[in-house]
Amino acid sequence: METTATTTMPIISKDELLKHYFGHRFLTRRTIELFPEKEFFEFSIGGMRTAAQLANELLSIAGPALKAIANSDDVPYIEPSVPASKAEYLKKWDEADEEIKTYWAQIPEERFPEMFNLFGQYNFPILHNVLYFIDNEIHHRGQMFVYLRALNIEPPFFWERW
Amino acid sequence: METTATTTMPIISKDELLKHYFGHRFLTRRTIELFPEKEFFEFSIGGMRTAAQLANELLSIAGPALKAIANSDDVPYIEPSVPASKAEYLKKWDEADEEIKTYWAQIPEERFPEMFNLFGQYNFPILHNVLYFIDNEIHHRGQMFVYLRALNIEPPFFWERW
Repeated sequence: METTATTTMPIISKDELLKHYFGHRFLTRRTIELFPEKEFFEFSIGGMRTAAQLANELLSIAGPALKAIANSDDVPYIEPSVPASKAEYLKKWDEADEEIKTYWAQIPEERFPEMFNLFGQYNFPILHNVLYFIDNEIHHRGQMFVYLRALNIEPPFFWERW
Repeated sequence: METTATTTMPIISKDELLKHYFGHRFLTRRTIELFPEKEFFEFSIGGMRTAAQLANELLSIAGPALKAIANSDDVPYIEPSVPASKAEYLKKWDEADEEIKTYWAQIPEERFPEMFNLFGQYNFPILHNVLYFIDNEIHHRGQMFVYLRALNIEPPFFWERW
């Protein structure tokens, strides 16, 4: 995850990346919604984490990470408390959306190439920390799609983002 | 996948996005490598495609799409021929790397916001067509990770990209 000096004209704006990210967050929310309550908390494959545990990881990163970056604060990663129902997950998901918008707005473009030691342990340029957690969401949601298929539930279309 | 006008300073350069993409391609290649030959072609979960079929989709997009974009050619999507062995997949993967580098270099930054009707059917800004196929690779590789776990094989670390 090293960065290189910008040797060419940039092609993505901060606004565009946020919009792209929110397209993914919409799709992840729909994916969570499709799980039956019980299976959301209990089903997994090959000893992996449940969909609830994967969703919880996503919740523990995006909002807290952007807050830490916006405040230039290397607070440690906090294991999130586990919501007790899918409805509570979705509520937290929506709250995280607001948190992401708030802190995203507080990180100026100029800071994206800057190194930042996220959670006191991931020392990368801010841009790469951000791309990492977007990619991590796509990765784990892809795994949730397999869980849904294994449960005989049709996942959302990958291209539906709004 | 609509785009917005660039209202803020851009934060990712074309070179950075390519480097980021190649980090993912490296990880996908390692994921393919870890499958046993037989399971690569035969194993799946919940009626989904096999890892070979998913990898074949990835091969049918990246190189051909960038070639079409570079040449401003709305050739239709071609169902790829299916390689007969994992070794042949890996060879095609490496060939695609070279194709991607070649055609990426031929697409100037200025074209990324331009609409392009990829394969005569996906009419989006070039940037969003490109982000789509990077995300699609992350998505399907996440699914291959579940297949590996179900086969009791440890997938690579998500953060190892080189």
